[in-house]
Amino acid sequence: MIDDRSVTHDVGDAETNRLEAFSDGVFAIAITLLVLQIRVPELGPGEGLASVLRDLWPSYIAYATSFGLIGIIWVNHHNLFRLVRRIDHMLLMINLALLLCVAFIPFPTALVARYLREDAGAPAVAAYGITLTFTAIIYNCLWFYLVLNRDRLMHTNVSDAAVRHRSVRFIMGSLLYGASVPLAFVSPWISIAMYVGLALLYIVPHGAAMADR
Amino acid sequence: MIDDRSVTHDVGDAETNRLEAFSDGVFAIAITLLVLQIRVPELGPGEGLASVLRDLWPSYIAYATSFGLIGIIWVNHHNLFRLVRRIDHMLLMINLALLLCVAFIPFPTALVARYLREDAGAPAVAAYGITLTFTAIIYNCLWFYLVLNRDRLMHTNVSDAAVRHRSVRFIMGSLLYGASVPLAFVSPWISIAMYVGLALLYIVPHGAAMADR
Amino acid sequence: MIDDRSVTHDVGDAETNRLEAFSDGVFAIAITLLVLQIRVPELGPGEGLASVLRDLWPSYIAYATSFGLIGIIWVNHHNLFRLVRRIDHMLLMINLALLLCVAFIPFPTALVARYLREDAGAPAVAAYGITLTFTAIIYNCLWFYLVLNRDRLMHTNVSDAAVRHRSVRFIMGSLLYGASVPLAFVSPWISIAMYVGLALLYIVPHGAAMADR
Amino acid sequence: MIDDRSVTHDVGDAETNRLEAFSDGVFAIAITLLVLQIRVPELGPGEGLASVLRDLWPSYIAYATSFGLIGIIWVNHHNLFRLVRRIDHMLLMINLALLLCVAFIPFPTALVARYLREDAGAPAVAAYGITLTFTAIIYNCLWFYLVLNRDRLMHTNVSDAAVRHRSVRFIMGSLLYGASVPLAFVSPWISIAMYVGLALLYIVPHGAAMADR
Repeated sequence: MIDDRSVTHDVGDAETNRLEAFSDGVFAIAITLLVLQIRVPELGPGEGLASVLRDLWPSYIAYATSFGLIGIIWVNHHNLFRLVRRIDHMLLMINLALLLCVAFIPFPTALVARYLREDAGAPAVAAYGITLTFTAIIYNCLWFYLVLNRDRLMHTNVSDAAVRHRSVRFIMGSLLYGASVPLAFVSPWISIAMYVGLALLYIVPHGAAMADR
Repeated sequence: MIDDRSVTHDVGDAETNRLEAFSDGVFAIAITLLVLQIRVPELGPGEGLASVLRDLWPSYIAYATSFGLIGIIWVNHHNLFRLVRRIDHMLLMINLALLLCVAFIPFPTALVARYLREDAGAPAVAAYGITLTFTAIIYNCLWFYLVLNRDRLMHTNVSDAAVRHRSVRFIMGSLLYGASVPLAFVSPWISIAMYVGLALLYIVPHGAAMADR
Repeated sequence: MIDDRSVTHDVGDAETNRLEAFSDGVFAIAITLLVLQIRVPELGPGEGLASVLRDLWPSYIAYATSFGLIGIIWVNHHNLFRLVRRIDHMLLMINLALLLCVAFIPFPTALVARYLREDAGAPAVAAYGITLTFTAIIYNCLWFYLVLNRDRLMHTNVSDAAVRHRSVRFIMGSLLYGASVPLAFVSPWISIAMYVGLALLYIVPHGAAMADR
Repeated sequence: MIDDRSVTHDVGDAETNRLEAFSDGVFAIAITLLVLQIRVPELGPGEGLASVLRDLWPSYIAYATSFGLIGIIWVNHHNLFRLVRRIDHMLLMINLALLLCVAFIPFPTALVARYLREDAGAPAVAAYGITLTFTAIIYNCLWFYLVLNRDRLMHTNVSDAAVRHRSVRFIMGSLLYGASVPLAFVSPWISIAMYVGLALLYIVPHGAAMADR
C-alpha cells in the first residue's frame, strides 16, 4: 500500500503470515470461548450436583463437536494457505467473511446445548447447521477464488490433482452440512450424528488421507 | 530502553512487529468477543425457537456490521504500519488509545442489538456512532502524528500522493461517522445504513481501490 | 499438503511453530478467561462489600490453582515441543484433544468456586479432578505417541534418560490427578491440597528439577 | 530441556520471544475482556437510554483506567524483557505470577464500575488498589530477581544507571499503589485520581522520560 495497490500485495510471505496469524487468533479465541456457554448450574431444592452435571451432557457434546469442527476448519485453513503465494484485497475480504462465520459458531453451539433435549431441539440444530453451511460456502468461495486466480495467487508447484481433490472434498462438505439442516427437522440426532461423524472421520488417519487427496 | 530513550526506539522491524502483534491480538479478541453479546433466548410459553431466532435479526446485523468495521480498521491499521519505520513513545500511546476505542466497540454493538427495534434505538445507535467517531478521530491522530514526523518515523519511499490520498480518506471517514450521530435521532436506520454501506463499499475492489489511493 | 500427505509434514520448524503458536493462543485465552468466573457480588440488605469479598475466597483459590495448573501445562507443553522435529496428522489431532481439555478447565474451576463451601463441594471438586485427569491422560497419549514414533518425529539428540524421566513423571501426574477424584468424596479439601501442592512443588526450583528429569 | 535443565535455558532469543508472545497474549486478552464488565442496561419504566448510559460513567472511568494501567504494564514488561538475555525456571514462575495478577484486574475493575458511586465505593476501590499493589510487588520481584542475577540473565550492555533508575521507579510505583489502599477509605476519589494521574503522567513524553530513566 506504499504507493500502488497492485504492487503492495506482492510482498509474499510476510503478508501471508500476518493474515494467518490474525486468522489463527480468531480461531483460537472462538474455540476457547465455547466453554463460556456452559453455565454453572444453580441447584434446586433436593437436587444433587452430580446428577445435574450429568444432565448437562448436551452441553458437553455441543462443546466437543464445535471444538472438533472449528479445529478441523483451522487445520484446513492452515493447509490451504500453504498453497497461497500472494494475497489480494478480495482474498482478504473473503477470509474476513470466513472468520465472521467461525466466530459466530459459539452462539448456535449454545443454542444446541440449551435446547437439544427439548422440543426446540430441531430449530436449534438447524440453526447450527445453517451456520456450518454458511461457513462451508464461504470456505468454498475462498478456495474457488484461489483456483480461478491460480497463476497469480497460488504457488506454482501445486498439482492439478491436488486442486481437483480439494475441490471435490470442499463441495461435498458444504453439501453434507446443507443436508443436515432439513434433516434436523426429521430428527436433530441425525444431524448431530453427522457432525460428530464428520469430525471423527477426520481424526482417523485414513479418513484424513482421503480428505486430503 | 537499555540506556537512553532516544536510541532504543530505533530498533526498527522487531519493535514494529511486536506492537503490531499486540494490536492484532486486541483486534482479533475484540472481533471474536462480539458474538458473546448474542444471548441464548429463553422461550416464553407458546413461543417457538425458530421465530424467536428470527426476531433476533438486529443482533445479527449488529454482529456483522461491527465485525466488518473492526475488520476494516484492522486492515487499515495493518496497511498503515507498513509505512512505519520507527516507533516512538507518543506513537505507542496513541496506538494504545486506538485499541482502547476498538476494544470498546462490543459494548455499543450490544446496545444496538438490544434496542434497535425499540424507542431507545436512536440513543443506542448514537452511542455506537460516538464510539466509531472517537475511533476515527484517534486513528486520524495516529496518522497525522506520523505525517508530522514523516522523516523520523516513516519509510522514505512513501510518496506524497499516498500521504495526501490517505489524509483525505481518513478525514472523510471521521466526518461520516460524526454525521451518523445526529442522524441517528432523525432515524437510527439512516445511520445503520451508513455503517453497512461503508463496510460494503470497502469490500468491492473498486471502492477499496478508491479508499487506498 | 501440496501434493502428498507424507511429504508435507516434513516442513519442520515452520510447521511446529505454527502449531505451538495456536496452542499458546488457546492456553493464554483459557488462562485469562478464568477471571470471568468470578462475578461481581450483589449486596443484600445490611451486607458490607468487604466481608462479601472475603467470603469469595474459594473463587480466589480456584482462580489461582487453575491459573497455576494451566501455566504449568503450558510450560510442559512448550518444553515437550522442543523435542519435536516433525508433526504428523495424528499428533495434530492428539494436540487438539489436549487443547479441548485445557480450554474446558474454566468450567470446573467455576464449579469449585461456586460450591466448594457447600455440600456439593465433593462432586464439584471431583468434576475438577476428572477434567485434570482427562487432560493428563491425553497429555500422556501425546507423549507416548511421540516416544513410539521417536525416530520419525523427535530430534535425534534426545537422550534415553530424558525420555525415561519424563515418562515416569507424566504417568505419576495422571495417577495423582486420578486419585484426587475419589479422594474428593472423602474430603474435597484433600484434593484441593493436592492440586495446590502439585502447583507449588513445581514452583520451587528443586521440585521442578526433579520434575524435569 | 532436551537433556539437562541448566543447558536448555541458554537458548536465548527464541526462548525469550516465546515467553514474551505468551505474556503479550495474556495482556491483550485481559485488556480486551475489560469491556465485558460493562453490561447492557435494562431500562426501567420511564427511563431513557441516554440518561442511563450517562449514569454508567463510573464504568467508563474504570474501563479507561484499567485499560491504561494494563497498557502501561505491557509497555514496561516489554521494555524490561529487552534487557533479558536468558530465562531460567524461577523467572518463568515469577512471570506467571505477574500474569496471574494482570489477568485478575478485570474483576476489581468491575467492582469499581459497579460500586464507585455507592457506599461500597471505598472497599471496591481498595480491592482495586490491593490488586495493583500485588501486581507492582510481583513486578518488583521480577525486576530484582533479574538484577540479582544480572550477569547470568541480563544483556551485558545494560548500564548501572539504567538499573538504578528503574529500581527507584518500580519501588516508588508499588509504594504509590500501596498508599492508594488506605486512602480509598478516606475517599475512593483520591485513589481513583492517583490511578488516572499515574496513567496520564506516563502518557506525556516528559513523564515517560522521567519514568524510563
